[in-house]
Amino acid sequence: MKLTPEQLQQFDRDGYLFFPGLFTPQETRTLNEAVPALYARREAFNVREKNSDAVRTNFAAHLYSEPFARLARHPRMVEPVMDLFQEQVYMHQFKINGKMAFEGDVWQWHQDYGTWLNDDLMPTERAMNVAIFLDDVNEYNGPLMFIPGSHKKGVVDAKHDLTTTSYPLWTVDDALIAQLVERAGGKNGGIVSPKGPAGSMIVFHSCLVHASSSNLSPWNRVSVYLSLCAVSNHIRRFKRPEFIAHRDFTPIECLPDDCLLKPYPVDLPWKNGMPASALVTSPGPIDQMKKAA
Amino acid sequence: MKLTPEQLQQFDRDGYLFFPGLFTPQETRTLNEAVPALYARREAFNVREKNSDAVRTNFAAHLYSEPFARLARHPRMVEPVMDLFQEQVYMHQFKINGKMAFEGDVWQWHQDYGTWLNDDLMPTERAMNVAIFLDDVNEYNGPLMFIPGSHKKGVVDAKHDLTTTSYPLWTVDDALIAQLVERAGGKNGGIVSPKGPAGSMIVFHSCLVHASSSNLSPWNRVSVYLSLCAVSNHIRRFKRPEFIAHRDFTPIECLPDDCLLKPYPVDLPWKNGMPASALVTSPGPIDQMKKAA
Repeated sequence: MKLTPEQLQQFDRDGYLFFPGLFTPQETRTLNEAVPALYARREAFNVREKNSDAVRTNFAAHLYSEPFARLARHPRMVEPVMDLFQEQVYMHQFKINGKMAFEGDVWQWHQDYGTWLNDDLMPTERAMNVAIFLDDVNEYNGPLMFIPGSHKKGVVDAKHDLTTTSYPLWTVDDALIAQLVERAGGKNGGIVSPKGPAGSMIVFHSCLVHASSSNLSPWNRVSVYLSLCAVSNHIRRFKRPEFIAHRDFTPIECLPDDCLLKPYPVDLPWKNGMPASALVTSPGPIDQMKKAA
Repeated sequence: MKLTPEQLQQFDRDGYLFFPGLFTPQETRTLNEAVPALYARREAFNVREKNSDAVRTNFAAHLYSEPFARLARHPRMVEPVMDLFQEQVYMHQFKINGKMAFEGDVWQWHQDYGTWLNDDLMPTERAMNVAIFLDDVNEYNGPLMFIPGSHKKGVVDAKHDLTTTSYPLWTVDDALIAQLVERAGGKNGGIVSPKGPAGSMIVFHSCLVHASSSNLSPWNRVSVYLSLCAVSNHIRRFKRPEFIAHRDFTPIECLPDDCLLKPYPVDLPWKNGMPASALVTSPGPIDQMKKAA
């Protein structure tokens, strides 16, 4: 899957590309069916909502779930990102975000790269977010909201919000959000919210400012968020556990295009549990870790 | 303003009627400009959000603010309600709900009549909600959501939610919401959300199940919510303070249609502060109060 010159131009201008219905219902069904068992596990990699038992984020399923391990190697997802970076990529972060019916809480306005820089010492913005809808997304179940063009600002000021939700986030100040929205067109396009059927995909820049509202509807809005980092841009610090920020910088090798329909063999290194090393963190950069060892 | 047979039929079926842009920008401007001074007051009638100082609900402004006293007597608002009830109405409740930019919190799924019955002993459903937008309402600033036809269920089971937000509410169970939405069309119309410019009006049945999401956008979504009760259906208990549930059952007398543009004189009984009696409440019905007196 090569991006067209129009798509490249659009990505540069808006900071995202939307591919409605990129995966078929048959392809997403296997993924969706695997979610309840993953969410049921009482493990560090399942972060639950502040005021309920519903899962807000599941981390690293591609290391212990076959269907998600195959999704992590899907050419329809990986190739556009390699095309944008003109380089091989590795998996920096892999999340299945719940935003469950009635329970899903807000995600405050933030940029992902801000966190990766502050926490993980990722050198540049050469990492990409990919969202894949496992449920239909409509205006009522807490869709993603983007401020188009906000990625052009690079890394903006952020404060570490530890209280609003159950998951700490480097969030952007209200006044700056208002300014970015105004610059992007105010009430005429200053916020956009791609909606579509399960199987739709969004590729968005790691500096694109985004948020999502709570889900008061009776419809789950489960999405996979994959963060693919250019191999040369790998993180330089292991301050966060490995299930949140991965430490294996091996380039992703794609499976064939029908990999969500056929049982291609995949490696599941955490199949029997996370290794103890995944929870070991270090306050300093990895070159210092190597010297100390 | 007489409702057409089509409108009466639509109201019966869906439980609401939407009048986009019913009031002009010139008419809403005076109202909108009066809000900050009302919200700034540190009084019992201003209920603030749980996690911020922003006002969630201001009560009873029609008793101490000239522009809102005029709105409370506006024929474009009052006449359709009298037309639906074929009876005169009094003001049961008068709110200016903030849902302020970045700060506005959710309103859980609820029916208003449930509260009026449980708390105020209002005999029947013959009271109507009217929402008037003082700001443009779009999909991003926490619009009202309705489940069309849900009013046909009458009063449904509810539990008193005292924790989710700063304002106690009789909220409807998730399973029942899911069922009502499915019955109303599921993803095809099971939830609706009227949006439009400032000055739009919604008239909705007191048993219509509704909710609204948080407002993460940089746009306020201030709305006036008026609850007009058929005079014969007045409340029978003063369990809540008078600024929340009014005790003056005098029928509303309308002003001329241009009353938001010209300074018609209006009575402002609480202009110099709420009377102490407004905070006096009683656990028993009013006929018992009279006997005791």
